[in-house]
Amino acid sequence: MPFDPQSLRYDDKGLIPAIAQDHATGEVLMMAWMNAEAVARTLATGNVTYWSRSRQAFWVKGEVSGHVQRLVDFRVDCDRDCLLVLVDQTGPACHTNRRSCFYTAVRDGREIELMRPEA
Amino acid sequence: MPFDPQSLRYDDKGLIPAIAQDHATGEVLMMAWMNAEAVARTLATGNVTYWSRSRQAFWVKGEVSGHVQRLVDFRVDCDRDCLLVLVDQTGPACHTNRRSCFYTAVRDGREIELMRPEA
Repeated sequence: MPFDPQSLRYDDKGLIPAIAQDHATGEVLMMAWMNAEAVARTLATGNVTYWSRSRQAFWVKGEVSGHVQRLVDFRVDCDRDCLLVLVDQTGPACHTNRRSCFYTAVRDGREIELMRPEA
Repeated sequence: MPFDPQSLRYDDKGLIPAIAQDHATGEVLMMAWMNAEAVARTLATGNVTYWSRSRQAFWVKGEVSGHVQRLVDFRVDCDRDCLLVLVDQTGPACHTNRRSCFYTAVRDGREIELMRPEA
């Protein structure tokens, strides 16, 4: 079936959550948002492109930092309201310079930092 | 630092996205939503509990289907506006009876089904 970005289910702001996962290690790196045009650009260019809610602008991941995400596979969930992008991640995915944004665990009612920023 | 569910950043509907990942295989299984009380119940019971937007009710995953998610680890992202729950998933996570909700890939402009429903 041909894929049409408009066939996805976007929220009332026209956005859909996109989970980025390291294609090689399976590590979940981050979650950000796309609109239909960001989906189209991601598929067309192979450079994962989000919509920045804070800047209200397209956000080609790594364009400034160099920490690019090359698209390896693009997945749609059963409800067509969430995306999973398998990526080849250069450097840390998180703006804190950690590999993943999910570096805090909650264990026994306390927050624990699981990883440090990369040098 | 003690963890307080109220310290997370919820959207204008009081919800936060929660990604469920198989703790053993790394497979991303599904994404659903929690409110602060669902976060608290998940941590207190070890049974991953979402907020169903369609039913507007708590949704103890697997309560009806038996396809429960036992919490293995609970992670918070850098912006505190997304959760990652590592789970021990009994049976398929998807309501279509597939292991993961992300069973559709987009490749060369076409949709491809990657996995079949389990028997």
